[in-house]
Amino acid sequence: MLLDAFIADKKKLVEQRLKQLASSSSIPETLGKAIMYSIDAGGKRLRPVLLLAVMETFGCKSEKGLDTACAIEALHTYSLIHDDLPSMDNDDYRRGKLTNHKVFGEAFAILAGDALLTMSFSFIMDDSSLTSDEKVKVAALLSKSAGPLGMVAGQAEDMEAEGAELTADQLQSIHEKKTGQLLQCSVLAGGILSGASDQELKHLKAYAHAIGIAFQIKDDILDVTGDEATIGKPVGSDEANNKTTYPKLFGLEGAKKELTRYIGLAKKELSEIGHDTRVLEQLADYIIARNH
Amino acid sequence: MLLDAFIADKKKLVEQRLKQLASSSSIPETLGKAIMYSIDAGGKRLRPVLLLAVMETFGCKSEKGLDTACAIEALHTYSLIHDDLPSMDNDDYRRGKLTNHKVFGEAFAILAGDALLTMSFSFIMDDSSLTSDEKVKVAALLSKSAGPLGMVAGQAEDMEAEGAELTADQLQSIHEKKTGQLLQCSVLAGGILSGASDQELKHLKAYAHAIGIAFQIKDDILDVTGDEATIGKPVGSDEANNKTTYPKLFGLEGAKKELTRYIGLAKKELSEIGHDTRVLEQLADYIIARNH
Repeated sequence: MLLDAFIADKKKLVEQRLKQLASSSSIPETLGKAIMYSIDAGGKRLRPVLLLAVMETFGCKSEKGLDTACAIEALHTYSLIHDDLPSMDNDDYRRGKLTNHKVFGEAFAILAGDALLTMSFSFIMDDSSLTSDEKVKVAALLSKSAGPLGMVAGQAEDMEAEGAELTADQLQSIHEKKTGQLLQCSVLAGGILSGASDQELKHLKAYAHAIGIAFQIKDDILDVTGDEATIGKPVGSDEANNKTTYPKLFGLEGAKKELTRYIGLAKKELSEIGHDTRVLEQLADYIIARNH
Repeated sequence: MLLDAFIADKKKLVEQRLKQLASSSSIPETLGKAIMYSIDAGGKRLRPVLLLAVMETFGCKSEKGLDTACAIEALHTYSLIHDDLPSMDNDDYRRGKLTNHKVFGEAFAILAGDALLTMSFSFIMDDSSLTSDEKVKVAALLSKSAGPLGMVAGQAEDMEAEGAELTADQLQSIHEKKTGQLLQCSVLAGGILSGASDQELKHLKAYAHAIGIAFQIKDDILDVTGDEATIGKPVGSDEANNKTTYPKLFGLEGAKKELTRYIGLAKKELSEIGHDTRVLEQLADYIIARNH
């Protein structure tokens, strides 16, 4: 399993560097603990792995993209902490561990999130392996993807949609913003830092868009068919929370078909890129195959 | 009153531009309203005014610093929204208006804050009047000043200190981070964008440090002696909340003396800068004279 080794390798690299970047003895004690708690909470590290996979696809060394990958993971981590808050999704567990506010209280969970979001820009600005032009390009992309036209908009639309019956288009619009934007940002940042052409960036963006939707369909399917211990949250929680999901809209078999269709679209985009894109293809397959 | 005209002029400039930068018809409706509510809530706009005052002192046009000034004000606005939340300072009113979460609920207040923080970096990255090097310098400064070694650390220390008796050193450490860092960031960003020398930046930093402390001492004094309608919150709320303040540590007269001493220190630093620093001197005096 070459991909497993690739993921494990990059994951380790990112986790080590992220801890290094985010820790400082000068951070007030409880705040520092709250930040590290969520950084240490694990996860697939899909975003940084995607970024580094794109860089290797374009023949660039991972080292150059490492701090940007950590910035995106830090920003993703902030979004999980804030999304879990009582006034948002009110989740007590994530990946089988207590959520940040259940351990450190709401105030420190909010502050840890604020700190991670703010730090993510420091990671990029302080990265000595990038030129100023590169820093500006990836930070512009990151702030746009994460802001009120991107990820924050997705969370806001999700909150407003609570309890409402959504159409497939509305559901897709929420997911494109809530999870899709940051996935796209990861893939595009990898392309930008590798000096990909505009044409190549266009295909990378379409690839990222397709795997973003596939990722969400798979999440919804796992909520129906997954193993509670493996996915780290109760099975059927979407239905219990009256959430609109792909299986609800298309049926379970229909949702699986949509998943396959989007993975196909993603791979088609890769075929337009004149590099060995096997790692990116395998990452698309991994999104179908994963069990958490 | 030359200074009043200067402040009114810059305030108008910043408020117009900030609204322009922060508004987009594509932002989800409630989120957009929550963002604009706090942007429109007024305030002294001290941080952007300071930045623009430094630029004029160094013979630079305000226009060049305008979007960075708006970025700092947006970031400051986010910090107020999050600080007011029930799990933080639990304030119902700010500047005589209901706080963000009292109008839009906690979830949207958190998201509006997240959006403003994220957008502040977009404002800098998208600013066509700056070089990439300048963008990187000010964004690096902003993220460091606002992060877990700066402003967020100050809020965390303030939360942890709740109800405790603080020494003067501890109180100063909290304020240096909680309000001082972003004031320093404003002054230094003005210096950086004007091409100030390292020596000049050193004096600007010391000036900003002194007015930062003076600003906080004055805040504490106003809480004792101020007019409720003018300061926009109940007089004596610090004492009621059992907060350590400068008047509590030094007595009211002692606090006033400290205030004068810091303003003197600030002006001494200005005298080391080979430019006409009268606007910055007057801004230091304004911090003593203000009644809200």
